[in-house]
Amino acid sequence: MIVVMNQGATKEDIERVVDKLTQLGFRVHLSEGVERTIIGVIGDERQLAGASLEVLPGVEKVMPILQPYKLASKGFKEEPTVVDVGGLKIGGGHFQVMAGPCAVESREQILEVAEKVKAAGATILRGGAYKPRTSPYSFQGLEEEGLKILAEARERTGLKIVTEVVDPRTVELVCRYADILQIGARNMQNFFLLKEVAKVDKPVILKRGLSATYEEWLMAAEYIMSGGNYNVILCERGIRTFETHTRNTLDLTAVPVIHSLSHLPVIVDPSHGTGKWQLVHPMAVAAVAAGADGLLIEVHPNPAEAMSDGPQSLTPENFARLMEDVRNIAQVMGRKIGTLQ
Amino acid sequence: MIVVMNQGATKEDIERVVDKLTQLGFRVHLSEGVERTIIGVIGDERQLAGASLEVLPGVEKVMPILQPYKLASKGFKEEPTVVDVGGLKIGGGHFQVMAGPCAVESREQILEVAEKVKAAGATILRGGAYKPRTSPYSFQGLEEEGLKILAEARERTGLKIVTEVVDPRTVELVCRYADILQIGARNMQNFFLLKEVAKVDKPVILKRGLSATYEEWLMAAEYIMSGGNYNVILCERGIRTFETHTRNTLDLTAVPVIHSLSHLPVIVDPSHGTGKWQLVHPMAVAAVAAGADGLLIEVHPNPAEAMSDGPQSLTPENFARLMEDVRNIAQVMGRKIGTLQ
Amino acid sequence: MIVVMNQGATKEDIERVVDKLTQLGFRVHLSEGVERTIIGVIGDERQLAGASLEVLPGVEKVMPILQPYKLASKGFKEEPTVVDVGGLKIGGGHFQVMAGPCAVESREQILEVAEKVKAAGATILRGGAYKPRTSPYSFQGLEEEGLKILAEARERTGLKIVTEVVDPRTVELVCRYADILQIGARNMQNFFLLKEVAKVDKPVILKRGLSATYEEWLMAAEYIMSGGNYNVILCERGIRTFETHTRNTLDLTAVPVIHSLSHLPVIVDPSHGTGKWQLVHPMAVAAVAAGADGLLIEVHPNPAEAMSDGPQSLTPENFARLMEDVRNIAQVMGRKIGTLQ
Amino acid sequence: MIVVMNQGATKEDIERVVDKLTQLGFRVHLSEGVERTIIGVIGDERQLAGASLEVLPGVEKVMPILQPYKLASKGFKEEPTVVDVGGLKIGGGHFQVMAGPCAVESREQILEVAEKVKAAGATILRGGAYKPRTSPYSFQGLEEEGLKILAEARERTGLKIVTEVVDPRTVELVCRYADILQIGARNMQNFFLLKEVAKVDKPVILKRGLSATYEEWLMAAEYIMSGGNYNVILCERGIRTFETHTRNTLDLTAVPVIHSLSHLPVIVDPSHGTGKWQLVHPMAVAAVAAGADGLLIEVHPNPAEAMSDGPQSLTPENFARLMEDVRNIAQVMGRKIGTLQ
Repeated sequence: MIVVMNQGATKEDIERVVDKLTQLGFRVHLSEGVERTIIGVIGDERQLAGASLEVLPGVEKVMPILQPYKLASKGFKEEPTVVDVGGLKIGGGHFQVMAGPCAVESREQILEVAEKVKAAGATILRGGAYKPRTSPYSFQGLEEEGLKILAEARERTGLKIVTEVVDPRTVELVCRYADILQIGARNMQNFFLLKEVAKVDKPVILKRGLSATYEEWLMAAEYIMSGGNYNVILCERGIRTFETHTRNTLDLTAVPVIHSLSHLPVIVDPSHGTGKWQLVHPMAVAAVAAGADGLLIEVHPNPAEAMSDGPQSLTPENFARLMEDVRNIAQVMGRKIGTLQ
Repeated sequence: MIVVMNQGATKEDIERVVDKLTQLGFRVHLSEGVERTIIGVIGDERQLAGASLEVLPGVEKVMPILQPYKLASKGFKEEPTVVDVGGLKIGGGHFQVMAGPCAVESREQILEVAEKVKAAGATILRGGAYKPRTSPYSFQGLEEEGLKILAEARERTGLKIVTEVVDPRTVELVCRYADILQIGARNMQNFFLLKEVAKVDKPVILKRGLSATYEEWLMAAEYIMSGGNYNVILCERGIRTFETHTRNTLDLTAVPVIHSLSHLPVIVDPSHGTGKWQLVHPMAVAAVAAGADGLLIEVHPNPAEAMSDGPQSLTPENFARLMEDVRNIAQVMGRKIGTLQ
Repeated sequence: MIVVMNQGATKEDIERVVDKLTQLGFRVHLSEGVERTIIGVIGDERQLAGASLEVLPGVEKVMPILQPYKLASKGFKEEPTVVDVGGLKIGGGHFQVMAGPCAVESREQILEVAEKVKAAGATILRGGAYKPRTSPYSFQGLEEEGLKILAEARERTGLKIVTEVVDPRTVELVCRYADILQIGARNMQNFFLLKEVAKVDKPVILKRGLSATYEEWLMAAEYIMSGGNYNVILCERGIRTFETHTRNTLDLTAVPVIHSLSHLPVIVDPSHGTGKWQLVHPMAVAAVAAGADGLLIEVHPNPAEAMSDGPQSLTPENFARLMEDVRNIAQVMGRKIGTLQ
Repeated sequence: MIVVMNQGATKEDIERVVDKLTQLGFRVHLSEGVERTIIGVIGDERQLAGASLEVLPGVEKVMPILQPYKLASKGFKEEPTVVDVGGLKIGGGHFQVMAGPCAVESREQILEVAEKVKAAGATILRGGAYKPRTSPYSFQGLEEEGLKILAEARERTGLKIVTEVVDPRTVELVCRYADILQIGARNMQNFFLLKEVAKVDKPVILKRGLSATYEEWLMAAEYIMSGGNYNVILCERGIRTFETHTRNTLDLTAVPVIHSLSHLPVIVDPSHGTGKWQLVHPMAVAAVAAGADGLLIEVHPNPAEAMSDGPQSLTPENFARLMEDVRNIAQVMGRKIGTLQ
């Protein structure tokens, strides 16, 4: 950490900061420049999280140097984490495609879509039983009934199941049915939910918040990891910008950035990332080219009748077409696409 | 709602949309323009929340016309809502100042700050017992112990208490101590928490999410109101933009905008809105001038030792100075500042 | 265009709007809904650009339906525009790579880099002779001297030349040397410069402004086209968001979106889009996969000594490695990569 | 400046950076921390503008410490700059209101509005003769004809004139008529225009770019000042965010922030800042309360007929009402409102 004193800072101001840092167990390094003094702080600055040096007289700004996350960082673990979902591997060159509808609407819908996405090459079935909807008047999900339908689809097809968990009170229940828990974008900083999924032994897909920086996203992963669950898969799903033509702005650069900062796998959701099914195909293949470890794609047997996210859902036919390009690009890029045994 | 067909749309495409809308119980109005046909839809478009007309062939876009919120809208209730907190009124010309530290750290801290903010003119004491912190390694709050300290401060000073609720499992517990519940910015779309505070009979301060539009914010209020709790106070606390000099970008225009769209009171938190105590004073008085129904200000007896948000906390002395300007501006603007009996 | 009247609008309010529209030569279509009246306006709404219906009593909002651009739209021209740069084609499946340093610094630098990017497969050399720098104290470019160096490099290598034009007074001069003019992001809405490049018969690369919507970007293209120059190539180079880890947020979705709205070719600049050379390779190949019609890449013989944009410049060796992956992906995607005769 | 080496940096990597800095004339200060070495750099880091230390092996990041602007900074000049416009003072407690239409449309319009805004208390008349419009099909301004009309209005009323300059080729012409030149938001980084207005001896209002940081804004001021023109007035006019209900998001916090970083005066334009005339009044008074040194307000005799920006223009009657509140708040805040002699 660097403490930059302002131009008018007095000797007393500098001593006060030095004293405070020394008391807290840090070593300091004074450097008197042309215009101002800067104080280098040696020690683990993460222990300063609470203290407010900015408030001391004469302090202009405090600049952290270390990343605030530890367990999620490359400094902690150099080689990529490979998350294992009942034999399916994600990360470190292993690539999986997860597909299915936004919401579980009925048994028929799920069983139909499961067969079709499996046939096209997906290995994991997605579908929401608890839906965090912007409007209280929208369909809120089938709840446990929906989880049972997903489990039946798994039994019939062998696909693994990923579904969203939205409430600390239902984490345990969802764990009984799901192979992977998903934390949605709006819950990325629902810290009390993160603490709950930290306690279970299921992998967690952690979606990036709508306006979360890379650092905040990795700090959310740190919540889960520091609570004991190391199987975190990050998912880029678009951020909020000034552009309204698309639902969100898909930030594909997140893929190589996260790979440079962290050992965790990162997948991409081009369905939420764009909000328009016509844009899903090009952005999905671009995600593979950018180095993503997997895709999360919304597929609905009849998008016009979808109870949620119809405009961004692919038909099974379009999904099958997408999978061909995904396979081609993945091959060129040397990625191993997972298959069911 | 307006459905805009694209230039190449066929008669069949148009009929398909008309048929679907008619089946759903809407009346339609065709208008064939120079370049394209548009379909006016008559009926309560909010009932369409699930349907995905955009997916039908020939549809270019669907433009909603009605606001998606009802109970929070001026259409539902023209005159301003005045929220009553044990005799203190907020809204409709009534103005209250809420002040106190970010986090409850100790009994001494709270009792000291309570006496001082009361002396300066605040009527409501703020302080967090459960802290949603970006880092899992930061101080996470005193929990029920903190709530008890707040309650003791109320008993001694007569100040009302506002404190944050972060987890559906502790809403009931917090209600035992607090006069107002606060939903933090990161939980604005934690719908399962919103549904919980909708069931209690305490007023709720609903902070605007970091990247929430006015409409999404009012939809979050709608969650609480549609669940039965009409005493919602909106709180502007800054949004996330590209500017990093300040912690957030305080959007004071939210005050007159919300007053034009909704009957609910709206207060301003310039402490989180700026992140720097030097900026709190000018932005607090600007908020009063813009028409805010109250202020939420972080005050700490010793900001340099604060366990959270020190840099944006006023000292009690600076808070007292601020209150003078607040009173002056409020008087010019014809606002009634609340006082304790 | 749709005019939405508010709930309290009177008959007189509605008549006033109808009269005004009728006087302006539009036909109108009244539709009385459950809660409010909406007025459909038939005629070319672009002629209303000046009029301010929102100001009339009883008007809640005015919603345009047509895109405000004509010549740049797919409605004007369905098949993709193929821009011809002295035999090199861009657009409609034809793909070119433009590479070179941010700034022309010296004859040696340019001749060296030109040979190397040509050897790796680039067909067009980039380099700035006029530099729009954030700081008045930074290197501002070699001006005409720089243009002459670029022309010499063209003569020696056969590479075409793209260089930025920054001032209406030097458009003519730059045209004497350049094969393609570039309008930088900060000048996307420098309308008086756009009007100048509209008059010349050189293709123009129009970079997207830092906070320009797709519509504003296409409107800037419309300025150039309506002035007579139809050879516009759009270039996505990243937008400004809250994320500061990268210099900008590269919005690759712009590629399929522009292809859906316009017939103009769109290329990608991952160097400015990310600001870090380590991220250029993955984002360049992702751009090809997303469907881009070309790439604009910063290459410097010695990035550590670059007078501008060193951190985002590839070495010639890294550029050669990138070209291999670009070729592989382009082949899979069916794109024709240009070569010099 | 601080150079942070990464964890794997070798001794050679560190020496390479130290050598390079020493060659460039800097003194360095090594500090070996627990996890990494940091290098403090002593000397005027602004001289490094070109060099790219980030590219050297082992360098993790380079953190500037000094602000990149000099002449615009408080370090250069502590007391506030008071700009004198023919006897009218702006800054240092002196406050002026500038009002008038977006565009000069006709002699009648300008003479009428000039009389009315003068009667209400404005001292400076605004009006655009050259209009930078998003659409090439919109009204582009009366050009010199418009300037002459403004000059006539000045002669009749004694109001000073502010008008926008958009093209380096017409700066001289505009100077013949205007008392203050305005640089619009879209031209804030049109550096070749900035260099031109730097040469004249008229005060310049420099509007903040749509997505400009405070630092970039002050760097644009630095362009004008380093070219010789010290009479720069900054103007906050809203930034681009995700919120679309308002035209821009007015960032009033810019006022105290600029006052803390710079000696230059800062005024506020709530008309562009909100885009809706109903919001202009509350945000104008809030701007005064926040400490603004002036206001720039769009007033049109008949907003419904305005050729540009009608929805955000006040009628003369509403402007007169606003001026009453402005005077009241200014008095409470101890600001001196200018009057014509």
